[in-house]
Amino acid sequence: MTRQPTAAEFREWAHRVVEWVAGYYERVEGLPVRSRVSPGEVAARLPGRAPEKGWGDAGGEGGAAGGGDGFERFMRDLEEVVVPGLTHWQSPRFFGYFPSNASYPAIVGEMLSAGLNVNGMLWSTSPAATEVETRVVDWLGELIGLPGRFLSPSGTGGGCIQGTASESALVALAAARRRAGWGRGVELSRLTVYASEQAHSSIVKAAMIAGLAAGPEDRRQVRLIGTDAELAMDVGALEAALREDVSAGRVPCFVVATVGTTGTTAVDAVDRIAGAIGRVCGGEGAGARPWLHVDAAHAGAACVCEEHRWMLRGVEMADSICFNPHKWLLTNFDCDCFWTAERASLTGALSITPEYLRNAATDAGSVIDYRDWQVALGRRFRALKLWLVLRCYGAEGLRAHVREHVRLAGLFEAWVRADGRFEVVSPRTMNLVCFRLRGGDGANRRLMEGLNGSGSMYLSHTVVPDGAGGTKVALRMAIGATLTEERHVRAAWEAIAREAQVQGASAAS
Amino acid sequence: MTRQPTAAEFREWAHRVVEWVAGYYERVEGLPVRSRVSPGEVAARLPGRAPEKGWGDAGGEGGAAGGGDGFERFMRDLEEVVVPGLTHWQSPRFFGYFPSNASYPAIVGEMLSAGLNVNGMLWSTSPAATEVETRVVDWLGELIGLPGRFLSPSGTGGGCIQGTASESALVALAAARRRAGWGRGVELSRLTVYASEQAHSSIVKAAMIAGLAAGPEDRRQVRLIGTDAELAMDVGALEAALREDVSAGRVPCFVVATVGTTGTTAVDAVDRIAGAIGRVCGGEGAGARPWLHVDAAHAGAACVCEEHRWMLRGVEMADSICFNPHKWLLTNFDCDCFWTAERASLTGALSITPEYLRNAATDAGSVIDYRDWQVALGRRFRALKLWLVLRCYGAEGLRAHVREHVRLAGLFEAWVRADGRFEVVSPRTMNLVCFRLRGGDGANRRLMEGLNGSGSMYLSHTVVPDGAGGTKVALRMAIGATLTEERHVRAAWEAIAREAQVQGASAAS
Repeated sequence: MTRQPTAAEFREWAHRVVEWVAGYYERVEGLPVRSRVSPGEVAARLPGRAPEKGWGDAGGEGGAAGGGDGFERFMRDLEEVVVPGLTHWQSPRFFGYFPSNASYPAIVGEMLSAGLNVNGMLWSTSPAATEVETRVVDWLGELIGLPGRFLSPSGTGGGCIQGTASESALVALAAARRRAGWGRGVELSRLTVYASEQAHSSIVKAAMIAGLAAGPEDRRQVRLIGTDAELAMDVGALEAALREDVSAGRVPCFVVATVGTTGTTAVDAVDRIAGAIGRVCGGEGAGARPWLHVDAAHAGAACVCEEHRWMLRGVEMADSICFNPHKWLLTNFDCDCFWTAERASLTGALSITPEYLRNAATDAGSVIDYRDWQVALGRRFRALKLWLVLRCYGAEGLRAHVREHVRLAGLFEAWVRADGRFEVVSPRTMNLVCFRLRGGDGANRRLMEGLNGSGSMYLSHTVVPDGAGGTKVALRMAIGATLTEERHVRAAWEAIAREAQVQGASAAS
Repeated sequence: MTRQPTAAEFREWAHRVVEWVAGYYERVEGLPVRSRVSPGEVAARLPGRAPEKGWGDAGGEGGAAGGGDGFERFMRDLEEVVVPGLTHWQSPRFFGYFPSNASYPAIVGEMLSAGLNVNGMLWSTSPAATEVETRVVDWLGELIGLPGRFLSPSGTGGGCIQGTASESALVALAAARRRAGWGRGVELSRLTVYASEQAHSSIVKAAMIAGLAAGPEDRRQVRLIGTDAELAMDVGALEAALREDVSAGRVPCFVVATVGTTGTTAVDAVDRIAGAIGRVCGGEGAGARPWLHVDAAHAGAACVCEEHRWMLRGVEMADSICFNPHKWLLTNFDCDCFWTAERASLTGALSITPEYLRNAATDAGSVIDYRDWQVALGRRFRALKLWLVLRCYGAEGLRAHVREHVRLAGLFEAWVRADGRFEVVSPRTMNLVCFRLRGGDGANRRLMEGLNGSGSMYLSHTVVPDGAGGTKVALRMAIGATLTEERHVRAAWEAIAREAQVQGASAAS
């Protein structure tokens, strides 16, 4: 259409979409969880070119009679072309990867954020976007038990919302490079990075982007430290690697402790890692001390419950930490909360102020400009959804959400352990159960493919050490979708047990 | 609340929010454009801690009687605390920075994307999220006249949606580093980057993040090339810089042509820049040829109109290009479209596949996994909003939108030129008029502050060379908000002329 749509048209479309979304949640349980389309199938149903005419235009969708028909045709395509091409992350039968929690208050928050469409790149470009964010990220930091040094009243620390934990890792590494002296006599090529072999791929990717690794296998400046029997970082091996690098004249720059690995939710010991760093490089205040970043992308959510806070033991010695409310804490993607105790290194690494961004509030130093905390300049008002989630559920509601999924994971684990055909392959720390059929990797892959192909549930896999120098496939049952209840977990276990029979697996006993 | 809200509660909240958003657009014209709050004022109105109880819980917002009250209290805070703290980017009287277009179809697209909340990190994790994106980004590429080598049917090129042009610059630089031989015998410290002095700050920021500049002033590997009288890159100076670096043994790696600079929308000559690169480093296919990235963040939108396509002359010799439909093309933030003619270098620089992300479709190489095109792993289904915008407006509607704003900018420019107290300080290429009071910088800053402080309009500023080796302040009137009509531009000019009188500026004649 060559005019702007009217508010009346928006009302018509948007109310219709609200009903569609509500209806989607009422039926998502019944949809095949994994999409069944083949590569190219969705694209083949879309025209090769953009329409020349818009809604309501003569010759366009909806003809000359008004915009309504065009919108209805869109909704039909949504139903017929898009929905069959989706893997339904919001299904209560989705147990893959880590959950990607949507919730009704968060969706409402996204609607408001889209409606306002302000850009909070600077405090001055929408003060409320910055100040609400600072406040609710403080709230959340306190809820998971972070020490005051990570919260904004400390004056030297504070938090913000990033898109993903990958971005948090990258900006933390940028801060680390700066503190390590890059540009002030220390060459970039001398800096070294440490994480466990079980750390998320985003850590190596951050090193690649930041100029410390030319590819995923480049180990000139990246050390992937071995793990112990529980797949947590071998802190002795970390200490040895740090010592070796220091004695070779390299500069340890960035250490990542993973709290809740992606493969198995193993928990690196932050306190012992900080101890190793202190012994080799000196403690806090030592110029050469590498930046300690805690990647708690998934596990951070659990720390709203006191019984899970042991996972963050030692965090008071870290320089930054992030976790994703968009995984298991009911806040729509994207919402990664990132806190640092030393924001000066962060903003020092990322700040650049051309004339067109100068303003009185920034010049006075009295405000936070979040563009200096992130890769991008522009930013959405994502704090609205987090604020709505925290208010709607309250701390008690969040704890109840987490505890129920942990309880369900405990049930599921017990069922697996009681069935001699299966084994649990790693300790369960929260809501993820890693298990496998006793037998070959092929049988496990076929089991997974049978389940995912059936549409009745969805899970994903990883590989873990087999104790004999090799690896073995493990299936990952991550129980954390917003709508998942006990009946879904029970049905999933029954489907798994049934599928195992189909695969002809025999009991090991 | 310690239970999940119901679909009925969602319907109640979401319909209410639709009405609120529609009402916001009906009244945004009357709100002070720039927020009047002082630093800390918004935060002071928010509690210091997250609520312990949620909506409807005994002791929580809304009491024990149900969730409705809690939601209404939120909406009251939205109105009383948030709205006064916003600078209204959607006001038709917002002329600052570049526009940040929201539109009704795009908001509806965001609602759907939030409702589905799928993660399109891999093709397999929601095939439609990838395939709709590939298709609509192709559509848009064709609409702005991109050569086929940037579109997905080429087999070697293609496009995707990034968050912002900053992210596009960073991933393009990552691809450039790889193609230049980093990790295959070429040290990172030998690579050099080129952009004009008027390029966006995100280019230097990308160099900082990518390990090529330790700070905004680090010029060891970054060359900011001077500009000509029109503030476009001095291509002769670029060629000289390239020659000097090559003869010193450095490796030119990344050249950015800015099409529509942030300060004044000056247009670097892509064809002449490509020519200079060819003369110094060899043409296409030459191993040592640096990556040519076109940053058309704002101007790309104008290229839906044939009369503006001269700005992209020579783009067929570039390696990548981006522009932001979230600026001037009616698509809510964030939506930056990025195309490359050489996707192998991009994915080669960013790909890393741990076991937990392996799947049959990826292993077969038959699909696109967009996580390998970006910094983050996870990604939202942003293509929905772009698809809705392209269908609702059609190509004709988009062209009408751009042409109307360009027409209004022409009117505004004529009014400025007809008033002897003012001067236009740089050529107008599209919808931005850079002008100033004849007189000192102080008078211009006071003029801007008077206007912005009045709430009746909002504009921003930059500095431009004064022709005598110094700089002078210029005011930037960017006409492109979705709701801006001729009457708003006329009222703005009248306010400017009036305020100039208040400032006591006298006619120069």
